[in-house]
Amino acid sequence: MAPIDYAALLRPGVPNDGGAVVGHIRQRYDFATGHPDPVELPLDELVAGLQEALGDEGRTLAWYPHPLGYPPLRDYLASKLRRDRRITCSADQLILGDGSSQPIAMVLYALLEPGDVVLCESFTYGGTLSAIRRMGAQAAGVECDEVGLIPDALDAALRRHAESGRAAKLVYTIPTFQNPLGTTADEARRGQILEVAQRNGVPILEDDCYVDLRYEGEVEPAIRALDEAGETVIYVGSFSKIIGPGMRLGYVLAPDALLSPLASIKTGGGVNQFAAMAVHRLADQGTLDEHIAQSCNSQRAKRDAMWAAMESDFADAATWSRPQGGIYLWVHLKDQNVDTADLVEPAVAHEVGITTGVNFHPEGTGGSHHFRLCFGFNTPEEITEGVSRLAAACADVGVAGVARAAAPVA
Amino acid sequence: MAPIDYAALLRPGVPNDGGAVVGHIRQRYDFATGHPDPVELPLDELVAGLQEALGDEGRTLAWYPHPLGYPPLRDYLASKLRRDRRITCSADQLILGDGSSQPIAMVLYALLEPGDVVLCESFTYGGTLSAIRRMGAQAAGVECDEVGLIPDALDAALRRHAESGRAAKLVYTIPTFQNPLGTTADEARRGQILEVAQRNGVPILEDDCYVDLRYEGEVEPAIRALDEAGETVIYVGSFSKIIGPGMRLGYVLAPDALLSPLASIKTGGGVNQFAAMAVHRLADQGTLDEHIAQSCNSQRAKRDAMWAAMESDFADAATWSRPQGGIYLWVHLKDQNVDTADLVEPAVAHEVGITTGVNFHPEGTGGSHHFRLCFGFNTPEEITEGVSRLAAACADVGVAGVARAAAPVA
Repeated sequence: MAPIDYAALLRPGVPNDGGAVVGHIRQRYDFATGHPDPVELPLDELVAGLQEALGDEGRTLAWYPHPLGYPPLRDYLASKLRRDRRITCSADQLILGDGSSQPIAMVLYALLEPGDVVLCESFTYGGTLSAIRRMGAQAAGVECDEVGLIPDALDAALRRHAESGRAAKLVYTIPTFQNPLGTTADEARRGQILEVAQRNGVPILEDDCYVDLRYEGEVEPAIRALDEAGETVIYVGSFSKIIGPGMRLGYVLAPDALLSPLASIKTGGGVNQFAAMAVHRLADQGTLDEHIAQSCNSQRAKRDAMWAAMESDFADAATWSRPQGGIYLWVHLKDQNVDTADLVEPAVAHEVGITTGVNFHPEGTGGSHHFRLCFGFNTPEEITEGVSRLAAACADVGVAGVARAAAPVA
Repeated sequence: MAPIDYAALLRPGVPNDGGAVVGHIRQRYDFATGHPDPVELPLDELVAGLQEALGDEGRTLAWYPHPLGYPPLRDYLASKLRRDRRITCSADQLILGDGSSQPIAMVLYALLEPGDVVLCESFTYGGTLSAIRRMGAQAAGVECDEVGLIPDALDAALRRHAESGRAAKLVYTIPTFQNPLGTTADEARRGQILEVAQRNGVPILEDDCYVDLRYEGEVEPAIRALDEAGETVIYVGSFSKIIGPGMRLGYVLAPDALLSPLASIKTGGGVNQFAAMAVHRLADQGTLDEHIAQSCNSQRAKRDAMWAAMESDFADAATWSRPQGGIYLWVHLKDQNVDTADLVEPAVAHEVGITTGVNFHPEGTGGSHHFRLCFGFNTPEEITEGVSRLAAACADVGVAGVARAAAPVA
């Protein structure tokens, strides 16, 4: 009786690195992960909202949730998308999921087979890149400028892949406060991207999960808003950045032809009703809008603190992004002799977490002179100190031009 | 510019029935779906638990949850499994998921390729059968007796499939209060099933989601408890039947070699932290045990009410199961001229929901003289009335031997 060889039984392609599964280790200055501010979570309001919802309809917890997710929260989202994103849709075109990562995984699972290609910004969100690779598919980067994806470059890439016999299945884009680049496409650019996708017959997966965190400038409509028939753009959003990732609530607005396939792919049934009821009451009573406004004020100050700290400590060593919103700076080291992958451990020695550029590189081969800093989690004072410590870590490994942190005043 | 043909873009095997996605339509006498009692949900206790948890550590909602799920809830589960199921395991061998359906889907995705075979009780849970078919795999039924899977039949089926060149990848079993059969394997039978699986080198997926709802008789250990090395049995459980499906919380205890693959397959990140914190406080403070004890008293009375009603209205027309727990009766009509699929609409006309036998048939071809009744949702009085109405529906379509519901007393 031999023990079962699970490695041999696994479906080909299922990741099996054999390692233990551990949680994210947070540094004191946690610029590595995309967190909102933990101090400002609307905890009391969530409890009050939940209490009210359970009083109204708590017995529905005994039922299996609607497969698309709690209908009143989908109603709210349909009206919010109309108000904030100029999107016309109905609640029954929305599927709630665990964060935006589950909806993104559902879309990728529905459309991708091994060997398929997804075009995306070079650079882009590492979680989506990992999900594409888990499908056995490939991400291919498209050149960007200061407002995001370059339409001519996208068109050329689409045609090149189609001519190679391996047409791209999907264009994945984060048009607002792009992660990690920080760019935002203006309306003209959004229209051009949509037109290129439509002309090439390829759907767009629009990831809009940062859009509510705007600190200045004019709101641009979603690409989905310009896609009036709603047939080209699959639109994904989330409550993770405006409430918290622990709520695990996001959504996808899908073309009608994709709704039933996506719903059948979703594992775990309709989204968590307990969390959805609490968030619905928070949102429907206007508390969420107030919370977003407060968060924007707070996050703007943090971004400005990080800009000031970078100016102080990295002016000669790096350039960095100037996003009007979101929670990230994208940093480009001038010193071409240092690989930013070699900065992670020295930064941790100074209690600073960063995420290196290769994590965002579609092909997984570039980004060695880049890293991303999240300013969402720490206070402005901590940000100043953390950037100073990061500069010290850079100096430790000999990065040219970086200011050595001043010795503590005796 | 042609519209995008999503049907052509879909990965082969992704279901695409083109229909709208609608929620379950509940009948007044809802014997169709596996619901716990909606009146007895511990709503106040859940809110109190959540409030306490958010006071203690609410800021963790700003973080991405641990990929295996909220560690204190996994600690609680490890101790509960030791106490109630004689299982020795650590919290880090458990992955929390959305109900038990997401963990089951993760296990199936990890192990099954199209054409693979899963052996299971004939009859068994339709949700797992659907998930197996969505993988392009096949379920094959094994004969059962009054304590469940027959070991010799399982052994013969495993050998037959291995010799056919298409070895079974997995044995799926619900050994306690089997859904829909209601059978429970004694310890000797559990040991025999384990021995057969080990001798054939095939893992067991043990679905134990009804085990806490025992109304009489002795507790039997989990099959996983007898698998001391923990290498053969993948064990799945859930809070859906002891709190509510709306909480979407379940778990899988996996062999060490499967943990990392399963965690990497799980979509949506670590399980909903908001719900997990509330359930942890409810469980850790003993309130969940009290709630389970109350539920068992209540559900026993409902089961007995359904038995009495069946005795009154179906004594000549059918036989039914005598489960010591769970929430289902499995009914076998004596009249071989009626297909139970033809009973659904007449039952709905009498405001009664039932689930017909074919939904539980592994090959999807049998069960035409069976249906399943859930007694978990309605009150004993409603159950009496609902069974009487079901008898009237049966009489409407000419089922032999059924008692016509008495006309209302004038």
